[in-house]
Amino acid sequence: MAEEKQTLRETDDDARALARRLVRSARHAAIAVLEAGTGFPLASRVLTGADVDGVPVILISALAPHMAALRADPRASLLFGEAGKGDPLAHARITVRVEAREVEKGGEIHARIRRRFLARHPKAALYADFPDFAFFRMVPISASLNGGFGRAYLIEAADLLIDTPALAALAEREEGTVRHMNEDHGDALDAYARAFGKAKKTGWRLCGIDAAGLDLANGDELLRIEFQHVLRDSGELRPLLVDLARQAREIID
Amino acid sequence: MAEEKQTLRETDDDARALARRLVRSARHAAIAVLEAGTGFPLASRVLTGADVDGVPVILISALAPHMAALRADPRASLLFGEAGKGDPLAHARITVRVEAREVEKGGEIHARIRRRFLARHPKAALYADFPDFAFFRMVPISASLNGGFGRAYLIEAADLLIDTPALAALAEREEGTVRHMNEDHGDALDAYARAFGKAKKTGWRLCGIDAAGLDLANGDELLRIEFQHVLRDSGELRPLLVDLARQAREIID
Repeated sequence: MAEEKQTLRETDDDARALARRLVRSARHAAIAVLEAGTGFPLASRVLTGADVDGVPVILISALAPHMAALRADPRASLLFGEAGKGDPLAHARITVRVEAREVEKGGEIHARIRRRFLARHPKAALYADFPDFAFFRMVPISASLNGGFGRAYLIEAADLLIDTPALAALAEREEGTVRHMNEDHGDALDAYARAFGKAKKTGWRLCGIDAAGLDLANGDELLRIEFQHVLRDSGELRPLLVDLARQAREIID
Repeated sequence: MAEEKQTLRETDDDARALARRLVRSARHAAIAVLEAGTGFPLASRVLTGADVDGVPVILISALAPHMAALRADPRASLLFGEAGKGDPLAHARITVRVEAREVEKGGEIHARIRRRFLARHPKAALYADFPDFAFFRMVPISASLNGGFGRAYLIEAADLLIDTPALAALAEREEGTVRHMNEDHGDALDAYARAFGKAKKTGWRLCGIDAAGLDLANGDELLRIEFQHVLRDSGELRPLLVDLARQAREIID
Protein backbone atom coordinates (compact mmCIF):
# COMPACT_ATOMS: atom_id res chain seq x y z
CA MET A 1 0.00 0.00 0.00
CA ALA A 2 1.21 3.43 -0.84
CA GLU A 3 1.16 4.68 2.71
CA GLU A 4 2.69 1.64 4.29
CA LYS A 5 6.05 3.27 4.34
CA GLN A 6 6.38 6.88 3.39
CA THR A 7 10.09 7.25 4.02
CA LEU A 8 11.48 9.04 1.01
CA ARG A 9 13.62 7.26 -1.53
CA GLU A 10 16.53 8.85 -3.28
CA THR A 11 15.27 10.49 -6.46
CA ASP A 12 16.75 8.79 -9.52
CA ASP A 13 16.25 9.17 -13.27
CA ASP A 14 13.47 6.58 -13.31
CA ALA A 15 11.54 8.57 -10.73
CA ARG A 16 12.06 11.79 -12.69
CA ALA A 17 10.92 10.12 -15.90
CA LEU A 18 7.83 8.73 -14.18
CA ALA A 19 7.04 12.17 -12.76
CA ARG A 20 7.26 13.77 -16.19
CA ARG A 21 5.16 11.05 -17.78
CA LEU A 22 2.39 11.46 -15.18
CA VAL A 23 2.23 15.23 -15.67
CA ARG A 24 2.65 15.29 -19.45
CA SER A 25 0.27 12.47 -20.34
CA ALA A 26 -2.56 13.75 -18.15
CA ARG A 27 -5.84 15.00 -19.55
CA HIS A 28 -7.15 16.09 -16.18
CA ALA A 29 -6.05 16.55 -12.60
CA ALA A 30 -7.46 17.20 -9.17
CA ILE A 31 -6.64 20.73 -8.11
CA ALA A 32 -6.40 21.98 -4.53
CA VAL A 33 -6.88 25.70 -3.98
CA LEU A 34 -7.66 28.04 -1.10
CA GLU A 35 -11.25 29.22 -1.29
CA ALA A 36 -11.39 33.01 -1.70
CA GLY A 37 -12.43 34.71 1.52
CA THR A 38 -12.33 31.63 3.76
CA GLY A 39 -9.02 29.94 2.89
CA PHE A 40 -10.84 26.61 3.01
CA PRO A 41 -8.99 23.91 1.00
CA LEU A 42 -11.07 22.98 -2.05
CA ALA A 43 -10.52 20.00 -4.32
CA SER A 44 -12.01 19.90 -7.80
CA ARG A 45 -11.35 18.49 -11.24
CA VAL A 46 -9.77 20.44 -14.10
CA LEU A 47 -8.72 19.68 -17.65
CA THR A 48 -4.98 20.01 -18.08
CA GLY A 49 -2.60 20.75 -20.91
CA ALA A 50 0.99 21.91 -21.01
CA ASP A 51 2.88 24.87 -22.36
CA VAL A 52 5.98 24.36 -24.51
CA ASP A 53 8.24 24.63 -21.44
CA GLY A 54 6.44 21.82 -19.65
CA VAL A 55 4.45 24.11 -17.36
CA PRO A 56 0.97 22.61 -16.80
CA VAL A 57 -1.92 24.69 -18.08
CA ILE A 58 -5.56 24.78 -17.00
CA LEU A 59 -8.62 26.45 -18.54
CA ILE A 60 -11.24 27.48 -16.01
CA SER A 61 -14.30 29.67 -15.68
CA ALA A 62 -14.81 32.68 -13.44
CA LEU A 63 -18.05 31.01 -12.41
CA ALA A 64 -16.12 28.16 -10.77
CA PRO A 65 -14.81 28.77 -7.25
CA HIS A 66 -11.22 27.87 -8.17
CA MET A 67 -10.86 30.92 -10.43
CA ALA A 68 -11.71 33.30 -7.56
CA ALA A 69 -9.43 31.24 -5.34
CA LEU A 70 -6.43 31.46 -7.67
CA ARG A 71 -6.95 35.19 -8.26
CA ALA A 72 -6.96 35.75 -4.48
CA ASP A 73 -4.05 33.39 -3.70
CA PRO A 74 -2.00 31.80 -6.51
CA ARG A 75 -0.89 28.82 -4.42
CA ALA A 76 -2.33 25.53 -5.63
CA SER A 77 -1.42 21.92 -6.16
CA LEU A 78 -2.30 19.50 -8.93
CA LEU A 79 -2.68 15.76 -8.40
CA PHE A 80 -1.89 13.87 -11.61
CA GLY A 81 -2.18 10.13 -12.25
CA GLU A 82 -5.35 8.09 -12.50
CA ALA A 83 -6.35 5.40 -10.03
CA GLY A 84 -7.40 2.96 -12.76
CA LYS A 85 -8.35 -0.60 -11.94
CA GLY A 86 -7.32 -2.54 -8.88
CA ASP A 87 -5.89 -1.05 -5.71
CA PRO A 88 -6.23 2.76 -6.02
CA LEU A 89 -3.03 3.29 -4.04
CA ALA A 90 -0.97 0.96 -6.23
CA HIS A 91 -1.12 3.44 -9.13
CA ALA A 92 1.52 6.11 -9.45
CA ARG A 93 0.48 9.71 -8.85
CA ILE A 94 2.19 13.01 -8.27
CA THR A 95 1.27 16.14 -6.34
CA VAL A 96 2.79 19.23 -7.97
CA ARG A 97 2.87 22.38 -5.86
CA VAL A 98 2.43 25.33 -8.18
CA GLU A 99 2.04 29.06 -8.41
CA ALA A 100 -0.85 29.89 -10.74
CA ARG A 101 -0.33 32.72 -13.22
CA GLU A 102 -3.28 33.89 -15.27
CA VAL A 103 -2.51 34.15 -18.99
CA GLU A 104 -3.32 37.58 -20.36
CA LYS A 105 -5.69 37.43 -23.31
CA GLY A 106 -4.70 38.69 -26.72
CA GLY A 107 -0.97 38.12 -26.65
CA GLU A 108 1.31 35.62 -28.34
CA ILE A 109 1.58 33.47 -25.22
CA HIS A 110 -2.18 33.22 -24.98
CA ALA A 111 -2.43 32.25 -28.66
CA ARG A 112 0.20 29.52 -28.22
CA ILE A 113 -1.37 28.10 -25.08
CA ARG A 114 -4.87 28.24 -26.56
CA ARG A 115 -3.75 26.50 -29.76
CA ARG A 116 -1.98 23.69 -27.88
CA PHE A 117 -4.78 23.23 -25.37
CA LEU A 118 -7.47 22.99 -28.05
CA ALA A 119 -5.38 20.55 -30.08
CA ARG A 120 -5.35 18.34 -26.98
CA HIS A 121 -8.97 18.99 -25.95
CA PRO A 122 -10.89 19.78 -29.16
CA LYS A 123 -14.23 19.95 -27.33
CA ALA A 124 -12.95 22.82 -25.20
CA ALA A 125 -13.23 25.00 -28.32
CA LEU A 126 -16.93 25.25 -27.44
CA TYR A 127 -16.21 27.49 -24.46
CA ALA A 128 -12.51 28.47 -24.48
CA ASP A 129 -13.30 31.91 -25.90
CA PHE A 130 -16.19 32.70 -23.56
CA PRO A 131 -15.35 35.92 -21.72
CA ASP A 132 -15.45 34.27 -18.29
CA PHE A 133 -12.86 31.65 -19.21
CA ALA A 134 -9.14 32.04 -18.73
CA PHE A 135 -5.99 29.99 -19.00
CA PHE A 136 -3.57 29.73 -16.10
CA ARG A 137 0.03 28.58 -16.28
CA MET A 138 0.60 26.46 -13.17
CA VAL A 139 4.29 27.02 -12.57
CA PRO A 140 5.82 24.14 -10.57
CA ILE A 141 7.50 24.87 -7.24
CA SER A 142 8.18 21.28 -6.16
CA ALA A 143 6.48 17.91 -6.34
CA SER A 144 5.90 14.71 -4.39
CA LEU A 145 5.84 11.56 -6.45
CA ASN A 146 4.22 8.41 -5.14
CA GLY A 147 5.17 5.53 -7.37
CA GLY A 148 2.74 3.21 -5.59
CA PHE A 149 3.37 0.83 -2.69
CA GLY A 150 5.32 3.29 -0.61
CA ARG A 151 7.72 4.43 -3.30
CA ALA A 152 7.78 8.13 -2.40
CA TYR A 153 10.15 10.67 -3.92
CA LEU A 154 10.68 14.41 -3.87
CA ILE A 155 10.84 15.90 -7.37
CA GLU A 156 12.34 19.28 -8.09
CA ALA A 157 10.51 21.79 -10.24
CA ALA A 158 13.39 21.78 -12.75
CA ASP A 159 12.81 18.09 -13.38
CA LEU A 160 9.33 18.86 -14.71
CA LEU A 161 10.35 21.78 -16.91
CA ILE A 162 11.76 21.85 -20.44
CA ASP A 163 14.68 24.22 -20.58
CA THR A 164 16.36 24.68 -23.96
CA PRO A 165 17.20 27.52 -26.35
CA ALA A 166 14.99 25.81 -28.93
CA LEU A 167 11.68 26.59 -27.18
CA ALA A 168 10.65 29.62 -29.22
CA ALA A 169 11.71 28.27 -32.63
CA LEU A 170 10.00 24.95 -31.98
CA ALA A 171 6.81 26.67 -30.84
CA GLU A 172 6.81 28.61 -34.09
CA ARG A 173 7.16 25.46 -36.18
CA GLU A 174 4.78 23.37 -34.11
CA GLU A 175 1.49 24.13 -35.83
CA GLY A 176 2.82 23.53 -39.34
CA THR A 177 4.68 20.35 -38.40
CA VAL A 178 1.67 18.96 -36.57
CA ARG A 179 -0.54 19.60 -39.60
CA HIS A 180 2.00 18.08 -41.96
CA MET A 181 2.43 14.96 -39.85
CA ASN A 182 -1.32 14.49 -39.46
CA GLU A 183 -2.00 15.02 -43.16
CA ASP A 184 0.86 13.04 -44.66
CA HIS A 185 2.37 10.74 -42.04
CA GLY A 186 -0.44 9.06 -40.15
CA ASP A 187 1.38 5.76 -40.63
CA ALA A 188 4.43 7.12 -38.78
CA LEU A 189 2.23 8.37 -35.95
CA ASP A 190 0.65 4.94 -35.56
CA ALA A 191 4.11 3.39 -35.61
CA TYR A 192 5.29 5.76 -32.84
CA ALA A 193 2.22 4.91 -30.77
CA ARG A 194 2.67 1.19 -31.23
CA ALA A 195 6.44 1.01 -30.81
CA PHE A 196 7.02 3.57 -28.07
CA GLY A 197 3.60 3.71 -26.38
CA LYS A 198 2.51 0.06 -26.59
CA ALA A 199 -0.72 1.27 -28.22
CA LYS A 200 -2.86 -1.37 -29.87
CA LYS A 201 -5.21 0.78 -31.89
CA THR A 202 -4.45 2.85 -34.95
CA GLY A 203 -5.67 6.27 -36.07
CA TRP A 204 -3.45 8.40 -33.83
CA ARG A 205 -3.14 12.09 -34.51
CA LEU A 206 -0.42 14.42 -33.31
CA CYS A 207 -1.68 17.15 -31.02
CA GLY A 208 1.53 18.65 -29.72
CA ILE A 209 5.29 18.82 -30.19
CA ASP A 210 7.78 20.31 -27.77
CA ALA A 211 11.51 19.98 -27.26
CA ALA A 212 11.06 16.95 -25.00
CA GLY A 213 8.53 14.88 -26.89
CA LEU A 214 5.31 14.33 -28.79
CA ASP A 215 1.68 14.27 -27.67
CA LEU A 216 -0.49 11.83 -29.58
CA ALA A 217 -4.27 11.66 -29.29
CA ASN A 218 -6.82 9.10 -30.31
CA GLY A 219 -10.38 9.99 -29.42
CA ASP A 220 -10.22 10.63 -25.70
CA GLU A 221 -6.89 8.88 -25.20
CA LEU A 222 -3.63 10.73 -24.87
CA LEU A 223 -0.18 9.25 -25.34
CA ARG A 224 3.03 11.02 -24.46
CA ILE A 225 6.20 9.96 -26.29
CA GLU A 226 9.33 11.42 -24.71
CA PHE A 227 12.45 11.94 -26.81
CA GLN A 228 15.72 10.43 -25.58
CA HIS A 229 17.19 13.92 -25.31
CA VAL A 230 15.74 17.40 -25.13
CA LEU A 231 16.24 19.17 -28.48
CA ARG A 232 18.75 22.04 -28.38
CA ASP A 233 17.91 23.36 -31.83
CA SER A 234 14.66 23.31 -33.79
CA GLY A 235 16.57 21.96 -36.80
CA GLU A 236 16.95 18.66 -34.96
CA LEU A 237 13.22 18.01 -35.07
CA ARG A 238 12.70 16.89 -38.63
CA PRO A 239 15.56 14.35 -38.79
CA LEU A 240 14.51 13.08 -35.35
CA LEU A 241 10.94 12.44 -36.50
CA VAL A 242 12.25 10.56 -39.52
CA ASP A 243 14.67 8.55 -37.41
CA LEU A 244 11.98 7.76 -34.82
CA ALA A 245 9.76 6.41 -37.60
CA ARG A 246 12.60 4.17 -38.75
CA GLN A 247 13.26 2.96 -35.19
CA ALA A 248 9.55 2.38 -34.61
CA ARG A 249 9.24 0.23 -37.70
CA GLU A 250 12.25 -1.82 -36.63
CA ILE A 251 10.69 -2.43 -33.23
CA ILE A 252 7.35 -3.41 -34.76
CA ASP A 253 8.74 -5.71 -37.42
CA MET B 1 -18.35 20.94 -20.68
CA ALA B 2 -18.79 21.11 -16.96
CA GLU B 3 -17.62 24.65 -16.67
CA GLU B 4 -19.52 26.06 -19.58
CA LYS B 5 -22.26 27.29 -17.31
CA GLN B 6 -21.75 27.11 -13.61
CA THR B 7 -24.99 28.81 -12.59
CA LEU B 8 -26.47 26.64 -9.88
CA ARG B 9 -29.51 24.51 -10.48
CA GLU B 10 -32.19 23.95 -7.89
CA THR B 11 -31.26 20.89 -5.85
CA ASP B 12 -33.78 18.10 -6.37
CA ASP B 13 -34.03 14.50 -5.21
CA ASP B 14 -32.15 13.21 -8.26
CA ALA B 15 -29.22 15.48 -7.44
CA ARG B 16 -29.25 14.36 -3.80
CA ALA B 17 -29.34 10.70 -4.85
CA LEU B 18 -26.46 11.22 -7.26
CA ALA B 19 -24.46 12.98 -4.54
CA ARG B 20 -24.98 10.09 -2.13
CA ARG B 21 -24.11 7.53 -4.76
CA LEU B 22 -20.83 9.29 -5.65
CA VAL B 23 -19.75 9.46 -2.00
CA ARG B 24 -20.94 6.03 -0.91
CA SER B 25 -19.71 4.02 -3.87
CA ALA B 26 -16.23 5.54 -3.84
CA ARG B 27 -13.11 3.52 -3.05
CA HIS B 28 -10.85 6.56 -3.15
CA ALA B 29 -10.97 10.33 -3.34
CA ALA B 30 -8.71 13.30 -3.90
CA ILE B 31 -8.25 15.17 -0.65
CA ALA B 32 -7.35 18.84 -0.31
CA VAL B 33 -5.75 19.89 2.97
CA LEU B 34 -3.75 22.83 4.29
CA GLU B 35 -0.11 21.87 4.66
CA ALA B 36 0.98 22.15 8.31
CA GLY B 37 3.12 25.21 8.88
CA THR B 38 2.68 26.78 5.45
CA GLY B 39 -1.08 26.58 4.81
CA PHE B 40 -0.28 25.56 1.23
CA PRO B 41 -3.18 23.69 -0.42
CA LEU B 42 -2.16 20.07 -0.99
CA ALA B 43 -4.01 17.53 -3.13
CA SER B 44 -3.40 13.82 -2.70
CA ARG B 45 -5.18 10.50 -3.03
CA VAL B 46 -6.75 8.61 -0.14
CA LEU B 47 -8.70 5.38 0.26
CA THR B 48 -12.21 6.08 1.50
CA GLY B 49 -14.85 4.21 3.42
CA ALA B 50 -17.92 5.32 5.36
CA ASP B 51 -19.16 5.10 8.90
CA VAL B 52 -22.69 3.83 9.64
CA ASP B 53 -24.04 7.40 9.64
CA GLY B 54 -22.74 8.09 6.13
CA VAL B 55 -19.74 10.12 7.28
CA PRO B 56 -16.78 9.41 4.96
CA VAL B 57 -13.78 7.78 6.61
CA ILE B 58 -10.12 7.81 5.61
CA LEU B 59 -7.14 5.82 6.88
CA ILE B 60 -3.83 7.67 6.64
CA SER B 61 -0.29 7.54 7.95
CA ALA B 62 1.50 10.06 10.13
CA LEU B 63 4.32 9.82 7.58
CA ALA B 64 2.08 11.40 4.91
CA PRO B 65 1.77 15.20 4.91
CA HIS B 66 -2.03 15.12 5.09
CA MET B 67 -2.00 13.66 8.61
CA ALA B 68 0.06 16.57 9.96
CA ALA B 69 -2.14 18.93 7.96
CA LEU B 70 -5.40 17.61 9.42
CA ARG B 71 -4.02 17.58 12.95
CA ALA B 72 -3.02 21.24 12.55
CA ASP B 73 -6.21 22.35 10.77
CA PRO B 74 -9.18 19.97 10.42
CA ARG B 75 -10.59 21.70 7.34
CA ALA B 76 -10.42 19.57 4.21
CA SER B 77 -12.37 18.66 1.15
CA LEU B 78 -12.83 15.37 -0.65
CA LEU B 79 -13.41 15.07 -4.39
CA PHE B 80 -15.39 11.91 -5.19
CA GLY B 81 -16.28 10.56 -8.63
CA GLU B 82 -13.94 9.07 -11.22
CA ALA B 83 -13.22 10.63 -14.58
CA GLY B 84 -13.52 7.33 -16.44
CA LYS B 85 -13.41 7.19 -20.21
CA GLY B 86 -14.25 10.01 -22.55
CA ASP B 87 -14.48 13.68 -21.61
CA PRO B 88 -13.17 13.97 -18.04
CA LEU B 89 -15.57 16.82 -17.30
CA ALA B 90 -18.63 14.91 -18.50
CA HIS B 91 -18.43 12.58 -15.50
CA ALA B 92 -20.25 13.49 -12.30
CA ARG B 93 -18.17 14.41 -9.28
CA ILE B 94 -18.70 16.04 -5.93
CA THR B 95 -16.55 18.18 -3.67
CA VAL B 96 -17.47 17.64 -0.02
CA ARG B 97 -16.21 20.23 2.46
CA VAL B 98 -15.49 18.43 5.72
CA GLU B 99 -14.15 18.81 9.21
CA ALA B 100 -11.74 15.95 9.92
CA ARG B 101 -11.99 14.28 13.32
CA GLU B 102 -9.35 11.73 14.28
CA VAL B 103 -10.82 8.50 15.63
CA GLU B 104 -9.41 7.62 19.02
CA LYS B 105 -7.89 4.15 19.10
CA GLY B 106 -9.22 1.42 21.36
CA GLY B 107 -12.85 2.42 21.62
CA GLU B 108 -16.05 1.00 20.18
CA ILE B 109 -16.21 3.62 17.44
CA HIS B 110 -12.70 2.76 16.31
CA ALA B 111 -13.54 -0.95 16.25
CA ARG B 112 -16.65 -0.32 14.15
CA ILE B 113 -14.88 1.96 11.69
CA ARG B 114 -11.92 -0.40 11.40
CA ARG B 115 -14.15 -3.42 10.81
CA ARG B 116 -16.17 -1.66 8.09
CA PHE B 117 -13.11 -0.15 6.41
CA LEU B 118 -11.25 -3.48 6.24
CA ALA B 119 -14.33 -5.26 4.92
CA ARG B 120 -14.29 -2.71 2.07
CA HIS B 121 -10.49 -2.64 1.63
CA PRO B 122 -9.18 -6.06 2.74
CA LYS B 123 -5.60 -5.22 1.71
CA ALA B 124 -5.55 -2.32 4.17
CA ALA B 125 -5.37 -4.94 6.93
CA LEU B 126 -1.65 -5.10 6.13
CA TYR B 127 -1.07 -1.65 7.66
CA ALA B 128 -4.25 -0.49 9.41
CA ASP B 129 -2.86 -1.42 12.83
CA PHE B 130 0.57 0.13 12.36
CA PRO B 131 1.07 2.68 15.14
CA ASP B 132 1.48 5.59 12.71
CA PHE B 133 -1.89 4.96 11.01
CA ALA B 134 -5.14 6.53 12.10
CA PHE B 135 -8.72 6.76 10.92
CA PHE B 136 -10.41 10.12 10.49
CA ARG B 137 -14.13 10.73 10.24
CA MET B 138 -14.57 13.43 7.60
CA VAL B 139 -17.73 15.13 8.80
CA PRO B 140 -19.52 16.90 5.93
CA ILE B 141 -20.15 20.63 6.17
CA SER B 142 -21.55 21.18 2.67
CA ALA B 143 -20.93 19.95 -0.84
CA SER B 144 -20.84 21.04 -4.47
CA LEU B 145 -22.12 18.50 -6.95
CA ASN B 146 -21.18 18.72 -10.60
CA GLY B 147 -23.37 16.35 -12.55
CA GLY B 148 -21.36 16.94 -15.72
CA PHE B 149 -21.95 19.45 -18.51
CA GLY B 150 -22.64 22.41 -16.29
CA ARG B 151 -25.16 20.72 -14.02
CA ALA B 152 -23.99 22.24 -10.74
CA TYR B 153 -25.85 21.93 -7.44
CA LEU B 154 -25.29 22.79 -3.81
CA ILE B 155 -25.80 19.80 -1.53
CA GLU B 156 -26.43 20.16 2.20
CA ALA B 157 -24.48 18.07 4.68
CA ALA B 158 -27.73 16.51 5.92
CA ASP B 159 -28.36 15.07 2.47
CA LEU B 160 -25.19 13.00 2.76
CA LEU B 161 -25.80 11.73 6.29
CA ILE B 162 -27.88 8.80 7.53
CA ASP B 163 -30.00 9.94 10.45
CA THR B 164 -32.18 7.30 12.09
CA PRO B 165 -32.72 5.81 15.55
CA ALA B 166 -31.68 2.42 14.10
CA LEU B 167 -27.98 3.30 13.66
CA ALA B 168 -26.64 1.64 16.81
CA ALA B 169 -28.76 -1.49 16.63
CA LEU B 170 -27.91 -1.99 12.95
CA ALA B 171 -24.21 -1.47 13.58
CA GLU B 172 -24.38 -4.18 16.23
CA ARG B 173 -26.06 -6.64 13.86
CA GLU B 174 -23.94 -5.72 10.84
CA GLU B 175 -21.03 -8.12 11.28
CA GLY B 176 -23.23 -11.18 11.87
CA THR B 177 -25.61 -10.35 9.05
CA VAL B 178 -22.77 -9.71 6.61
CA ARG B 179 -21.19 -13.06 7.49
CA HIS B 180 -24.51 -14.87 7.20
CA MET B 181 -25.31 -13.34 3.81
CA ASN B 182 -21.84 -14.10 2.46
CA GLU B 183 -21.88 -17.68 3.73
CA ASP B 184 -25.44 -18.67 2.87
CA HIS B 185 -26.89 -16.22 0.37
CA GLY B 186 -24.31 -15.52 -2.30
CA ASP B 187 -27.04 -16.09 -4.88
CA ALA B 188 -29.12 -13.25 -3.40
CA LEU B 189 -26.08 -10.93 -3.41
CA ASP B 190 -25.45 -11.66 -7.09
CA ALA B 191 -29.14 -11.03 -7.78
CA TYR B 192 -28.98 -7.64 -5.98
CA ALA B 193 -25.88 -6.70 -7.97
CA ARG B 194 -27.43 -7.70 -11.26
CA ALA B 195 -30.93 -6.30 -10.71
CA PHE B 196 -30.14 -3.07 -8.85
CA GLY B 197 -26.55 -2.40 -9.89
CA LYS B 198 -26.59 -3.58 -13.51
CA ALA B 199 -23.59 -5.78 -12.68
CA LYS B 200 -22.68 -8.41 -15.22
CA LYS B 201 -20.32 -10.57 -13.21
CA THR B 202 -21.16 -12.88 -10.32
CA GLY B 203 -19.30 -13.62 -7.09
CA TRP B 204 -20.29 -10.50 -5.15
CA ARG B 205 -19.73 -10.38 -1.43
CA LEU B 206 -21.37 -8.07 1.05
CA CYS B 207 -18.92 -5.75 2.77
CA GLY B 208 -21.24 -3.35 4.57
CA ILE B 209 -24.82 -2.74 5.66
CA ASP B 210 -26.19 0.50 7.02
CA ALA B 211 -29.65 1.96 7.41
CA ALA B 212 -29.59 3.40 3.90
CA GLY B 213 -28.21 0.55 1.84
CA LEU B 214 -25.76 -2.24 1.09
CA ASP B 215 -22.13 -2.19 -0.04
CA LEU B 216 -21.18 -5.05 -2.34
CA ALA B 217 -17.64 -5.85 -3.40
CA ASN B 218 -16.16 -8.00 -6.13
CA GLY B 219 -12.39 -7.97 -6.31
CA ASP B 220 -11.57 -4.30 -6.59
CA GLU B 221 -15.06 -3.22 -7.64
CA LEU B 222 -17.53 -1.66 -5.25
CA LEU B 223 -21.27 -1.43 -5.77
CA ARG B 224 -23.60 0.61 -3.61
CA ILE B 225 -27.24 -0.44 -3.46
CA GLU B 226 -29.43 2.18 -1.78
CA PHE B 227 -32.68 1.17 -0.07
CA GLN B 228 -35.88 2.95 -1.09
CA HIS B 229 -36.23 4.26 2.46
CA VAL B 230 -33.85 4.66 5.38
CA LEU B 231 -34.58 1.97 7.98
CA ARG B 232 -36.10 3.29 11.20
CA ASP B 233 -35.72 0.04 13.14
CA SER B 234 -33.14 -2.71 12.87
CA GLY B 235 -35.95 -5.26 12.78
CA GLU B 236 -36.80 -4.03 9.28
CA LEU B 237 -33.52 -5.30 7.87
CA ARG B 238 -34.13 -9.01 7.59
CA PRO B 239 -37.55 -8.83 5.87
CA LEU B 240 -36.15 -6.12 3.59
CA LEU B 241 -33.23 -8.32 2.47
CA VAL B 242 -35.65 -11.15 1.74
CA ASP B 243 -37.99 -8.84 -0.14
CA LEU B 244 -35.12 -7.30 -2.13
CA ALA B 245 -34.02 -10.78 -3.20
CA ARG B 246 -37.57 -11.50 -4.41
CA GLN B 247 -37.72 -8.18 -6.29
CA ALA B 248 -34.29 -8.78 -7.79
CA ARG B 249 -35.29 -12.19 -9.12
CA GLU B 250 -38.44 -10.70 -10.66
CA ILE B 251 -36.37 -8.05 -12.41
CA ILE B 252 -33.87 -10.61 -13.68
CA ASP B 253 -36.43 -13.17 -14.86
